[in-house]
Amino acid sequence: MGYEEVVRQFDPWSSFLIKDYDKLFKAFGIRPLTGELISQLPTSHRLLRRRIIIGHRDLERIINAIREGEEYAVMSGIKPTGEFHLGSKLTAEEMIFFQKLSNKARLFYCIADVEAYNDNRQSLEVSSKVALNNVMDMLALGMDPRRVYVYKQSEEVRVLRLASLLSRDVTYSTIKAIYGEKSFGLYFSALIQVGDILLPQLPDFGGPKPTIVPVGVDQDPHIRLTRDLAKKHEKDYGFLLPSATYHRLVRDLTGREKMSKRNPMGMFTLTEEPESIKRKIMNAYTGGRPTVKEQRERGGNPDICMIYELLRVHFEESDEALRELYYKCKGGEVICGECKQLAVEKVLKWVDEHRKKREKVRDLAERLLIEHML
Amino acid sequence: MGYEEVVRQFDPWSSFLIKDYDKLFKAFGIRPLTGELISQLPTSHRLLRRRIIIGHRDLERIINAIREGEEYAVMSGIKPTGEFHLGSKLTAEEMIFFQKLSNKARLFYCIADVEAYNDNRQSLEVSSKVALNNVMDMLALGMDPRRVYVYKQSEEVRVLRLASLLSRDVTYSTIKAIYGEKSFGLYFSALIQVGDILLPQLPDFGGPKPTIVPVGVDQDPHIRLTRDLAKKHEKDYGFLLPSATYHRLVRDLTGREKMSKRNPMGMFTLTEEPESIKRKIMNAYTGGRPTVKEQRERGGNPDICMIYELLRVHFEESDEALRELYYKCKGGEVICGECKQLAVEKVLKWVDEHRKKREKVRDLAERLLIEHML
Repeated sequence: MGYEEVVRQFDPWSSFLIKDYDKLFKAFGIRPLTGELISQLPTSHRLLRRRIIIGHRDLERIINAIREGEEYAVMSGIKPTGEFHLGSKLTAEEMIFFQKLSNKARLFYCIADVEAYNDNRQSLEVSSKVALNNVMDMLALGMDPRRVYVYKQSEEVRVLRLASLLSRDVTYSTIKAIYGEKSFGLYFSALIQVGDILLPQLPDFGGPKPTIVPVGVDQDPHIRLTRDLAKKHEKDYGFLLPSATYHRLVRDLTGREKMSKRNPMGMFTLTEEPESIKRKIMNAYTGGRPTVKEQRERGGNPDICMIYELLRVHFEESDEALRELYYKCKGGEVICGECKQLAVEKVLKWVDEHRKKREKVRDLAERLLIEHML
Repeated sequence: MGYEEVVRQFDPWSSFLIKDYDKLFKAFGIRPLTGELISQLPTSHRLLRRRIIIGHRDLERIINAIREGEEYAVMSGIKPTGEFHLGSKLTAEEMIFFQKLSNKARLFYCIADVEAYNDNRQSLEVSSKVALNNVMDMLALGMDPRRVYVYKQSEEVRVLRLASLLSRDVTYSTIKAIYGEKSFGLYFSALIQVGDILLPQLPDFGGPKPTIVPVGVDQDPHIRLTRDLAKKHEKDYGFLLPSATYHRLVRDLTGREKMSKRNPMGMFTLTEEPESIKRKIMNAYTGGRPTVKEQRERGGNPDICMIYELLRVHFEESDEALRELYYKCKGGEVICGECKQLAVEKVLKWVDEHRKKREKVRDLAERLLIEHML
């Protein structure tokens, strides 16, 4: 794999699916997330146990902060170009997991409205409306509103200032090497993300501290650029290099592409109509055989099945139930129609509960967007 | 003159002296400032009469606003990397002139501390201290504090936001064509200047309005980039294309280079010690002859004399006195020693008065930097 190809695979703005994690991790210095490291966290999470989160940088620094009862920041955000979907849910759950690991953790939740403007030509007004929905989803998913700082990039002068100042230390060739040939606006969006990630370490928020940034592996260019610039400003700002965890890119329901808002049949949002969700699940790509008879005899293939993937990544919390389903599928005991029905029931139940939780937090979300913190 | 050479001459960050204004003006669409246009302004100014200000873009729009009693903005600023010197005085006087032309004019005074950081590696703390001195100079030079908005780039979220959003519409090739090959930080400083120039037209300041930006001709790349981006956002923001006036680049006292902080013997600051100013004037490059005898016989050459230039551009308000000096020099009636003595007296008197005015406005300057406007 040539360098160009590596850069193309590691592209936060493309829908290209990564094929070989080991090679990418080695090329860029991401370390595999080992069972030993996972066991040092105070509680577990299905995304860790099931190897959806597969890599990290300096997670030890966060484990240490938890152990010592020291403050740390959890930093991530959302590009407010639509409702929460399965992909946003993944990052959201990771953020909330890290927020809950210690009462010294504080979540920084960024609404990337400048990136939405530069990458998607979406106005700040539209972003503002979508942001309310996104914050409601975060709260419904369990974000603790007492330990969070919520902001929009376009309104956070400290982020924009940091991006403007750090731009001094970025050459065109560096940024081109990291992101490939992109527009000036996207390059600057990248610098603003650097500002986002370093915001928790500014004096207004108590100065340098460990920071964990849970992202999909395609977002690593931002982490690399941030760590590079944090290192260049260790002396003046005292920045610690931010830590990160990386989850796999999840294929969509059609089984072919990186999940993306660009292919609506391959994913669904957390507030989508039940009928629509059902139809998408019923049409998902599975590991079934051409006939029921053949499937009963030879068994299905859960390893390539998007229904199994949906349950494994998102909707089946019980490891035991998941394992049982896996072997029943392999043994031909359960066939695709039954399994899809099970998935539809589980998902619609979850979505219904989520909808109810969302309704209760609308006022709180509005307040957070105005007051930034409680 | 090839394109590369044109770009090199029009470089806001170099100390290269422009040789052929006509060619540059034609290449970039700057129009010569005619006597007819000057006569349409309600009052005159020595910098206009003496053709120090030589070019403009859309000055008619400002003349019209004055005539109709409509609001307009005067926008410029300073990179706070040192005390006011003769060059900063020039731009300052132009700003103040345009501010005083109408009671509907409002001055926007920008402290370009992000540019000082990116171009000169100067910290925001140092810029903040220098800025106080600069605002004191502005007030001593006659800036009306009741119709001004003073701000630092690093603290004005609306400017940083505008720069971030407008970056979407800038390609690397466009910005390279305008500025030549520069660092990412300087490109972004340029975008922040675009934000500065368009700030007066944002809704918070009453929306779209004519804006005049008095600059040295070397700053035209900023004006061009701004007008290009303002045009692209005519629909969403309603921006009017900003107008500009251009002054010649003034040679320094040694007669050789564009006046610059980089060559301290060629210029002096408005707060410099009298002894030091005197020494620099006494050492200035003149149009004198090798011997006094020869000068008495053949006369001096005021056209190449930096003492004459100093009086013409800065310190002799009377056109008549200036004309008289010119012909006396040509006719050998006054020789360099006498003329230098006259210049020293005039300059030191001016500097002394300026110093006294400055002392009276320190509190006011401090207030403006905190409250931004009165």
